[in-house]
Amino acid sequence: MAVPPSTYPRRLLPLFLALFQGALLLFFALFVTYDEPSAQVEDTNLAANQVYSTFPFFQDIQVMLVVGLGLLLTFLPRYGFSALTHNFLLLNFSMQWALVLQGLLHHFHHGQIHLDLHKLLIAEFAAVTVLISVGAILGRASPCQLLVMATCEIPIYLASEWVIVTCLGVLDVGGTITIHVFSCYFGLGVSKALFRATQQPLHPKETPTTSSDLMSLVGTLILWVFWPSFVAVPCQPGDAQHRAILNTLLAMSAGAITTVVASSLLERDGKLSPGHLQNGSLAGGVAIGVVADMAMPPVAALALGSLSAVVCVLGFRFLTPLLARKLALHDQCGIHNLHGLPGILGAAASVVAVLVAPKDTSGSRPSQLSPAGGNASEVVEGQWGGRGVGGQALCQAAGLAVAIGASLLAGLLTGAALRLPCLARPPERLCFDDSLYFKIQDEAESPGPDSSAEEGALALKE
Amino acid sequence: MAVPPSTYPRRLLPLFLALFQGALLLFFALFVTYDEPSAQVEDTNLAANQVYSTFPFFQDIQVMLVVGLGLLLTFLPRYGFSALTHNFLLLNFSMQWALVLQGLLHHFHHGQIHLDLHKLLIAEFAAVTVLISVGAILGRASPCQLLVMATCEIPIYLASEWVIVTCLGVLDVGGTITIHVFSCYFGLGVSKALFRATQQPLHPKETPTTSSDLMSLVGTLILWVFWPSFVAVPCQPGDAQHRAILNTLLAMSAGAITTVVASSLLERDGKLSPGHLQNGSLAGGVAIGVVADMAMPPVAALALGSLSAVVCVLGFRFLTPLLARKLALHDQCGIHNLHGLPGILGAAASVVAVLVAPKDTSGSRPSQLSPAGGNASEVVEGQWGGRGVGGQALCQAAGLAVAIGASLLAGLLTGAALRLPCLARPPERLCFDDSLYFKIQDEAESPGPDSSAEEGALALKE
Amino acid sequence: MAVPPSTYPRRLLPLFLALFQGALLLFFALFVTYDEPSAQVEDTNLAANQVYSTFPFFQDIQVMLVVGLGLLLTFLPRYGFSALTHNFLLLNFSMQWALVLQGLLHHFHHGQIHLDLHKLLIAEFAAVTVLISVGAILGRASPCQLLVMATCEIPIYLASEWVIVTCLGVLDVGGTITIHVFSCYFGLGVSKALFRATQQPLHPKETPTTSSDLMSLVGTLILWVFWPSFVAVPCQPGDAQHRAILNTLLAMSAGAITTVVASSLLERDGKLSPGHLQNGSLAGGVAIGVVADMAMPPVAALALGSLSAVVCVLGFRFLTPLLARKLALHDQCGIHNLHGLPGILGAAASVVAVLVAPKDTSGSRPSQLSPAGGNASEVVEGQWGGRGVGGQALCQAAGLAVAIGASLLAGLLTGAALRLPCLARPPERLCFDDSLYFKIQDEAESPGPDSSAEEGALALKE
Repeated sequence: MAVPPSTYPRRLLPLFLALFQGALLLFFALFVTYDEPSAQVEDTNLAANQVYSTFPFFQDIQVMLVVGLGLLLTFLPRYGFSALTHNFLLLNFSMQWALVLQGLLHHFHHGQIHLDLHKLLIAEFAAVTVLISVGAILGRASPCQLLVMATCEIPIYLASEWVIVTCLGVLDVGGTITIHVFSCYFGLGVSKALFRATQQPLHPKETPTTSSDLMSLVGTLILWVFWPSFVAVPCQPGDAQHRAILNTLLAMSAGAITTVVASSLLERDGKLSPGHLQNGSLAGGVAIGVVADMAMPPVAALALGSLSAVVCVLGFRFLTPLLARKLALHDQCGIHNLHGLPGILGAAASVVAVLVAPKDTSGSRPSQLSPAGGNASEVVEGQWGGRGVGGQALCQAAGLAVAIGASLLAGLLTGAALRLPCLARPPERLCFDDSLYFKIQDEAESPGPDSSAEEGALALKE
Repeated sequence: MAVPPSTYPRRLLPLFLALFQGALLLFFALFVTYDEPSAQVEDTNLAANQVYSTFPFFQDIQVMLVVGLGLLLTFLPRYGFSALTHNFLLLNFSMQWALVLQGLLHHFHHGQIHLDLHKLLIAEFAAVTVLISVGAILGRASPCQLLVMATCEIPIYLASEWVIVTCLGVLDVGGTITIHVFSCYFGLGVSKALFRATQQPLHPKETPTTSSDLMSLVGTLILWVFWPSFVAVPCQPGDAQHRAILNTLLAMSAGAITTVVASSLLERDGKLSPGHLQNGSLAGGVAIGVVADMAMPPVAALALGSLSAVVCVLGFRFLTPLLARKLALHDQCGIHNLHGLPGILGAAASVVAVLVAPKDTSGSRPSQLSPAGGNASEVVEGQWGGRGVGGQALCQAAGLAVAIGASLLAGLLTGAALRLPCLARPPERLCFDDSLYFKIQDEAESPGPDSSAEEGALALKE
Repeated sequence: MAVPPSTYPRRLLPLFLALFQGALLLFFALFVTYDEPSAQVEDTNLAANQVYSTFPFFQDIQVMLVVGLGLLLTFLPRYGFSALTHNFLLLNFSMQWALVLQGLLHHFHHGQIHLDLHKLLIAEFAAVTVLISVGAILGRASPCQLLVMATCEIPIYLASEWVIVTCLGVLDVGGTITIHVFSCYFGLGVSKALFRATQQPLHPKETPTTSSDLMSLVGTLILWVFWPSFVAVPCQPGDAQHRAILNTLLAMSAGAITTVVASSLLERDGKLSPGHLQNGSLAGGVAIGVVADMAMPPVAALALGSLSAVVCVLGFRFLTPLLARKLALHDQCGIHNLHGLPGILGAAASVVAVLVAPKDTSGSRPSQLSPAGGNASEVVEGQWGGRGVGGQALCQAAGLAVAIGASLLAGLLTGAALRLPCLARPPERLCFDDSLYFKIQDEAESPGPDSSAEEGALALKE
């Protein structure tokens, strides 16, 4: 087949990526060198220990994002290959893009950027925002649209993170506000602007099957197991990190049990919904991030985990259908229930935690996640920069407001940009289908000569 | 549908879990605080090192239990979602329940329990017993029955573990006797008392398919890879831990090869049985636990691994059918072959190892797994508490006898309790079926209007 | 059924394995003891640190080989169980066999071999060569043939590795030349000699399905995540290891994006090929190994990763069909594209890296992977053994030539040996089918009475 309109948009993806990769090579050639830790610490053992203390956490987070999150997204039965691949591609693209921007903004000294594992980790955290936001439009957006979204989201995230953490001094070690809340409302903004007022009908390929639900649950379990690494890695080694690990474990454990309670009580026949389990079990991890390293009693972690799970399941049951009906807001993976609501709950908990915290707590230090981090120990000038309990509580609330406001606005603008025809949004008929992007054998129905003809025809119409 | 009898038992699960979670919150609010390791060690680096030396092992074990064991249980083709979820739910429930009981029994000082990662790890080990025992009745018991079983098993395990390790001074670093043998015979006792004399006919949904067998094998491989972490984590850091890792690796490697030999020789057409592979490859890990840190030649680890695999495969081929015919004993996952027989073999090996051990071995210290652990170094008063070689060998045998006797008895009593009608054992027709517990799309046969009507009718009959 | 010819070859596998396992037991009983690190280092903390610094890497590599590589090979839809199991069996067999040979060759002192984790790791690396070579003949060779191949390949690998690393002093920390290039051409040699001039027709069971492609992609992602551990573990702790991790991460990230570009540009309809993704994403890791710890700018890692991915995809698109047509060379998994071409590219890059390297680089030390390793620090006498830049560059090229030449020759001889009729090569009709080796339920078509009769008949004909 040589129908030009059907082939043209397909060329956009490789061209865009090739251009980006070429520019990245040029940027690295001009500016990037390796940091030699031993040059600073004068001791090979210490340099080795720095690698040993970060690298296992880094690997855990890679497993979460590449395998865990990837599998979680395979709940769409005929879109599993696309979900895994697009998640993988976006992670790499966003991470490299964040590396460039962070290098230019924060690490550019004497015309050089010194790369180390810590900077890669920070770039990886920036990439997480893209992977979360994608959940709102999964299956109905083309890879080109996703890449353009990533291109816009990374700089906006860096700006918002700078305002929230550096300017406002918000404490958010696990990225609850800066990553989860931000990316959720960004994704919802994109979805709203992209799909406008048209309420999306239920697509026949949208309903999970037993086996796709099973794969997705395996993804959830992988995320559940490694979540403590995600929260604990930016913490100060020692007590604060130990506390962050324990708080996260408790919150996730309570969240898992409460999800079963909530899901089972909400359905008339008492059966559990796979979607509730896949998301509710993780809600505790989202909420606990912002308070994980604070000096609070363990019961607070349990309570926060339970409450997040309830809020998440209630969101799936009532809020998502309501938003779809009233606002025509489309949220394919329910990111508002997994990242938005528990994130807001966590932010509220952080206000309370700051207000009731004992005076001499030593754990509440700025996150090392900040791109300006590394020298975190220098930034601490007294507790909370000397702004007092009330001031810090106010800052936490302000940080939440900034995250929601900025992300919604930026998301709406980005979503509008994604409507550009050249970005090749797939026609409704071919949504949720791997065969649009991959040379893949279809088991259920043989592709036949019709489908590709129809594909071409629909592409023409677009 | 509003058939009361079909909905009533479904409410029991969330109510039970909600009550438990509420009580746990109260308990944590009243008694539990965080341990601050640095308060004791006066050195942040040391505190950080303690986290780094335990946490990776802890994560490995979480992967084993949540992902590996979960997937291993998905060999039932239409019960995979239930197997994964129930395994996950029981792990969290049992871990929290063990945390409460261990706190009350061992760590209650001045009205407070200091929580740390080590105590969570010990609670996790207690939870393993429940996950193993479930294997005997998987697919034929309701989630309520499984939770009641967990509620009974954890305190009995703690008592039995206290008698075996603290009173008898049995050396069992990898939990071969205290965890594997105990949970196996507890599960078999439950199965016997629950199903009584009725021999279970082969259920049409019980036969694995290629894809469910493949998923299950992936679970086996994950367990196989991380097993050395499970055995090594309670060992004294240094030589003993190094030896435990090597012994476990050798035993599991020999077990894998011997499984292929044994399975292939036992079948007339020489084909391998997936069930043999899924279980036999792990038998070496079960048996090696009790001797893993002892000073024995590497060949002993190889031989024990091989022998365990042979015993496991022989068990599947001959003993399980025999027990089913003669004793009407139902063992769904063959836990007797994977945990019982290799566990007994390991206990016997530990008697031999103690008898022939050199006098000045430094590795044979009490397991740190004991809830009273942590201060393990204080408990060592000379080798084996000064009771001599013969005495220690006798203790190992006595420990095995206690584990089998106590667990069988307690299992039978627990199984009898599970017959309470309110616990809603599923009717035979609806066993091994995800759709009884989950709102799940069935691929093979569309559910149709009949199945739910039949479900209600059968529930009425129960 | 009691047709002797059909049952006889099935007995060979268990007999061969049982004999091997027995000989191994004898060998261990006579010669192998445990190394006690603390006897050397006089300090328990240091001994413990040695375990902590190697063991997590070791586990990562086990996950890669057992789960990641196993799943990658399940792309054959009806051969998944065999692929996973044979990969697992061969890993254990080859690792034990390498342990024996390495012990005899390098570690035999005063009639004893002291085993430690480092020696197991080196044996595991030797086993990797077998797992890679198998890819060329996957699905068309019997387990007996694979075991005989492993038996031949391990000693040849050890000899070739000794020549390349010890005699020629080639720098190859990640095994690009010694492992990847060697095993690729060994596998191709075996394939050529085994299948001779008969061009293999496309087998109906050879085409991947959506779900088998998905499982295979999950395997790729697991390999992708843990690849930095594979490359970094033999490095000197400190800067060199840090650099190896960063270089590998950059190369793999660039490779992932470039694979999408290349695959999408090469197909007329712009759709991505699953096979390209599954392999191209990993090509960067193969190529970077040989230069990962060298002092080179980060841009070189990015460029090498990108280039490898392009070469790999081009290989799949053009070279594999060409070799099949012109040379009747059969390469089932495309190992030439994943291991051969990127390996040669990496070797070429190492020549350049050596030529342009700054004089005082401290990272270029001999690999600790060498079986004679452990005392690597003693071998360094000045940079590159004082042979100068040009000499070292020449050595790198000579190492590549030795690896290709020796492996091709040895592979051809081994492949000829595999034609022995008693090794029971499966008849073409039963290739790519789990049911030949496993008692497994077939979903797609019920086995029926015909298939086993036909199986027997074909076995008779063989």
